[in-house]
Amino acid sequence: MPSPAPALAHAIRPTTLLHPDALSRHLGICVTLATETFQHTGSFKVRAAYNLALNVPQSKIIAASSGNFGQALAHACQLLGKQCTVVMPTTSAKVKLDAVRGYGAEVALVDTAVKTRVSRVAELAAENPDAYIASAYDDNFVIEGNASLGAELAACGESWSAILVPIGGGGLISGIARGLRRAGNTTPLIGAEPAIGNDAARSLRQGSIATNPIEPQTLADGARTLSVGKLNWEVIRREVADIIEVSEANIAQGLRVLFSDANLKVEPTGALSVGALLENPKRFAGMSVCCVLSGGNVDAANYANLVAQKT
Amino acid sequence: MPSPAPALAHAIRPTTLLHPDALSRHLGICVTLATETFQHTGSFKVRAAYNLALNVPQSKIIAASSGNFGQALAHACQLLGKQCTVVMPTTSAKVKLDAVRGYGAEVALVDTAVKTRVSRVAELAAENPDAYIASAYDDNFVIEGNASLGAELAACGESWSAILVPIGGGGLISGIARGLRRAGNTTPLIGAEPAIGNDAARSLRQGSIATNPIEPQTLADGARTLSVGKLNWEVIRREVADIIEVSEANIAQGLRVLFSDANLKVEPTGALSVGALLENPKRFAGMSVCCVLSGGNVDAANYANLVAQKT
Repeated sequence: MPSPAPALAHAIRPTTLLHPDALSRHLGICVTLATETFQHTGSFKVRAAYNLALNVPQSKIIAASSGNFGQALAHACQLLGKQCTVVMPTTSAKVKLDAVRGYGAEVALVDTAVKTRVSRVAELAAENPDAYIASAYDDNFVIEGNASLGAELAACGESWSAILVPIGGGGLISGIARGLRRAGNTTPLIGAEPAIGNDAARSLRQGSIATNPIEPQTLADGARTLSVGKLNWEVIRREVADIIEVSEANIAQGLRVLFSDANLKVEPTGALSVGALLENPKRFAGMSVCCVLSGGNVDAANYANLVAQKT
Repeated sequence: MPSPAPALAHAIRPTTLLHPDALSRHLGICVTLATETFQHTGSFKVRAAYNLALNVPQSKIIAASSGNFGQALAHACQLLGKQCTVVMPTTSAKVKLDAVRGYGAEVALVDTAVKTRVSRVAELAAENPDAYIASAYDDNFVIEGNASLGAELAACGESWSAILVPIGGGGLISGIARGLRRAGNTTPLIGAEPAIGNDAARSLRQGSIATNPIEPQTLADGARTLSVGKLNWEVIRREVADIIEVSEANIAQGLRVLFSDANLKVEPTGALSVGALLENPKRFAGMSVCCVLSGGNVDAANYANLVAQKT
């Protein structure tokens, strides 16, 4: 008899809480960082992917992702003995293709100049009627997996005036909200979204899901989404106090201050929450806040360019 | 009555233990990282500096340091309400001068083309007969402060076939040795030293302190020492099993693999222990080892250059 699959809690690492003196001193804000850069596969996505792969009955899972979700899903499926196909653009960096394949997943390449990722996934779904088609955010198993981070923040013994969380499709912030509130924790949640892809901020203002006209070409490539998911929105509209729109300059500057004042390597999407503080440090002056850093996977050349830029 | 000074344990942070899957997989070695990059002032040096400033009766402390020890000593003296003067070369990066001054210490500049750091310290010592002249490594308070890291590794509940530690003056490895052995832990200790400044490795071979003819111009600027200290040597000769000489290429490559496979920013000196694994990965194949990462403070431009280099 095979041994049972490990529960979510055994497949993920607790987040790493850091208290960077220099960053707090320079911002005049008492900053705690909850960094998922040391999580398995280097981002929070394994929380979502593992919970999904663990709980869907299907033995094959298909998803489109050129980034962290694909890698995390491939890792989760390998642990759970499931088949995994990740749809990735032909233009994907070799290091990303290799990472997904390294976990034993199949890569389905798509030339996005000819065909959208969505239509390639639809083709694969038709060819594999028994497979589960996984969204990286708009899925209850994803939200529940990410709720584990909210539960950790509620249980860690620290308290903050606000928790700032990067927003792309809304999977992370809706999960954190669910985990926090379930634990009775009412800390205000603030989203951090690229200003050039501000669909979530507009959604919150108008009271319904807004959409970006095209995939925003922000540095924060984990937030290049057209809109938040429907399931995510139902949580965001009730539980998120505000969404700060972060300029591209402050995304890059967030990455740089995490480098210089916290000795942390983050990917641009991971820097959104600190970028949100930089948009208006006075708003948080003297307060204790927690910034969630979603991941650390970034190409060396891109990172070197960003870090070396003068500000 | 003033409140008593906090004990060492309250002035330092526990080291951060990380278990980077990708690094372990790529090396074929089960690697634990004990990283001091998130320590106060960004390196282990605060363990030494605080313990020294806490225990010497003098209210003024003078030290020569262009790097982490100066910053840590300035920080410790600020916490303890003592005066601090750090002798630094006129060529020091402004960011390093500012960091020391930011902790309220005085910087005594020395033009090393005209006068050595040692003679500038001697001048200051003559002018300040009541001051304590602190070595960054050859001091019992320094060794005892660094012993706190050995005690943590002994108490953390993990065990390894070896612990690898960067060597410059020998303050860190001698302290870790003392802390481990005092706790009854006999894990073999292996030093990691720049090959172009291999005085400690030669010392271990010949059974007495060897000296580099000039300050070695290694990337690992925390290891640009002429020899280990006398007090350090007394511990090293008894407790260090081996010292691996790390090429400049593998110091840089160690920094890069920590970036790509562990999402960690380290300074070149901090990468020595992983560089030592890269010198001969087969030696450690299948073993569990702990690599101590001594610090993370590195200029953005230097770091960007190192990370972006192809290997």
